Amino acid sequence: MARTLDSTPKADGFRMPGEFEPHEQTWILWPERTDTWRMGAKPAQKVFTEVAKAINQFEPVTMGVSTAQYRNARHQLPENIRVVEISYNDSWMRDCGPIFVKNDQGEVRVVNWQFNAWGGLYDGLYFPWDLDEQVPIKVAEIERLDHYDAPMVLEGGSFNVDGEGTLLTTEECLLSPGRNPNLSKAEIETHLSNYLNVQKIIWLSRGVDPNETNGHVDGVCCFVRPGAVLLHWTDDPNHPHYDIVHDAYEKLSHEKDAHGRTLKIHKLYGGSPRATTKEETEGIDFVKGTKPRQEGEELDLSYINFFIANNGVVLPAFGDKNDSLAVETLSGAFPDRKVVSVPNAFEIALAGGNIHCITQQQPRG
Amino acid sequence: MARTLDSTPKADGFRMPGEFEPHEQTWILWPERTDTWRMGAKPAQKVFTEVAKAINQFEPVTMGVSTAQYRNARHQLPENIRVVEISYNDSWMRDCGPIFVKNDQGEVRVVNWQFNAWGGLYDGLYFPWDLDEQVPIKVAEIERLDHYDAPMVLEGGSFNVDGEGTLLTTEECLLSPGRNPNLSKAEIETHLSNYLNVQKIIWLSRGVDPNETNGHVDGVCCFVRPGAVLLHWTDDPNHPHYDIVHDAYEKLSHEKDAHGRTLKIHKLYGGSPRATTKEETEGIDFVKGTKPRQEGEELDLSYINFFIANNGVVLPAFGDKNDSLAVETLSGAFPDRKVVSVPNAFEIALAGGNIHCITQQQPRG
Repeated sequence: MARTLDSTPKADGFRMPGEFEPHEQTWILWPERTDTWRMGAKPAQKVFTEVAKAINQFEPVTMGVSTAQYRNARHQLPENIRVVEISYNDSWMRDCGPIFVKNDQGEVRVVNWQFNAWGGLYDGLYFPWDLDEQVPIKVAEIERLDHYDAPMVLEGGSFNVDGEGTLLTTEECLLSPGRNPNLSKAEIETHLSNYLNVQKIIWLSRGVDPNETNGHVDGVCCFVRPGAVLLHWTDDPNHPHYDIVHDAYEKLSHEKDAHGRTLKIHKLYGGSPRATTKEETEGIDFVKGTKPRQEGEELDLSYINFFIANNGVVLPAFGDKNDSLAVETLSGAFPDRKVVSVPNAFEIALAGGNIHCITQQQPRG
Repeated sequence: MARTLDSTPKADGFRMPGEFEPHEQTWILWPERTDTWRMGAKPAQKVFTEVAKAINQFEPVTMGVSTAQYRNARHQLPENIRVVEISYNDSWMRDCGPIFVKNDQGEVRVVNWQFNAWGGLYDGLYFPWDLDEQVPIKVAEIERLDHYDAPMVLEGGSFNVDGEGTLLTTEECLLSPGRNPNLSKAEIETHLSNYLNVQKIIWLSRGVDPNETNGHVDGVCCFVRPGAVLLHWTDDPNHPHYDIVHDAYEKLSHEKDAHGRTLKIHKLYGGSPRATTKEETEGIDFVKGTKPRQEGEELDLSYINFFIANNGVVLPAFGDKNDSLAVETLSGAFPDRKVVSVPNAFEIALAGGNIHCITQQQPRG
């Protein structure tokens, strides 16, 4: 119970399930830092609460909260959402949190990847990240799960798996100089293979947020089920994401997954390009070493950053004309799931992510 | 799950089991504060680790640890001891922690008594105690247990139950002016009855540590099983505890429990009276508002502050001539349990408590 294992998930017959497979629960971290989240993180706390409630319609949710915010979070969240003390540097559970793997007998374990705040001292978003990097172990301890320490920096949002041996990622992120400069692409592939138990890696070129996560795939593309993906999309050649998603489409069209299947590609139209306003960026503390968030920065309004829950899909609404189209597209892609949008998720986009970035599913044991 | 209940355990058919009933696990908090524990709490951390290991022979142990000490605690403790983040002001889980109650169907709930550091602003041992008082809720959340908020200050070490309707306590503590000055003795009895589901309260006069806990009963007397108690003892009229324990013997001899039974009284001889040395009190930070711990203070070496685990008993050894007699007495009182003593438990006595004070059992569901 809660052992550190020297072997690998692959060697032990564990694999990372697809997000669309059954969940035990979802983990989220409470937003708090005032140099990421405007106005003392109060608007963000409201939206995170709405996200937690939306997911909690479908499955249990555990919120990790710092000592300082514990009572406030416990008060704001409904009683059926579990609140546990976990400290953090910021609240991106997808990226700093545990990656869960599972074997055919239903045993669940944690993979503890290294984390360096999206690029460490090279181009990371803040310093330090000592608390973030302890999050996977703390979750494993609470749940009494054994864990593996993976010898590589990797964020959960930088890859997506189909649970049957195929992984999607981007070269922009995984080969970025701030993460694993001493590992070759082949060595990175070996670690992904050993610790997630995948046989085929599909490399896209770029993501849509070079200045945030160095192009996480979870702003661009994800599996709907084995053999089918959703791709962030625009038909407008003037849209800043146009070249990126068209290039991804090309690559995906010519790839086969681990089982030799050609991928079915669903297009998910993104929000209109727009920059942040003065009001939207006011009330963010300036802290040396933290990426500043200023008026006029381009927002990456990608609906791909949704979350798949048990029998449900929870996506951001941006107040954009494509909000309802996104609901329609996801309803078509997931005909057996209830699709729920969170109205003020724009607040999370202001800090550089969205619903997928702030969540992590724990597979059902 | 993790609801706040408006009723009472008594009304809902829940009772606090005796410590000798089966446990799910034991909770401990990691020692850390440098104005309680000498030498940066490093000797105490070693001893707490030994206590956790001793109990872990018999049942699972969860250690609550602050953010600052998490990695160190995780490193010092064996992997089969669960480590979770819980913040605290100090490490006396018995007193600030949850009291668990259980019904006949095996459902377990938490009673969240108020806590004010053994006397609040009147004669409490430190200020503030805001983190201590959140501990019961945090444990309940981690374990997904519903809880009751009891309307009274009460520490777990100030009473002891037989699980069949009888409670032992002291007037010195429960009627102390720093705890519930607005409640009469009858009102206190009503709250104990409602929130622990007891029908008979046996009031002893005093405990042995007036300047620490205002005379917690867990330094003097506890149930071995329904109908039998162990009583701290000395035959030496010059021993500072002589009058206290002889008075308690008298009272216990004339009492009957909730089922009308006369109590069998086992005597457990305490350690020899002695005062702290210069060396033993060096390296304790001075902090205004915290009880100072100085050379020449009388130590309360009572073996009654042992812990009953599943099939085991864990008691302190003080390096006193009565250490082995205590093991013998407890082996006689608990013929079916393995009796284990922790060699350096003297370290805990220096801070005013012992093994019972730093533990809290969670009954098996």
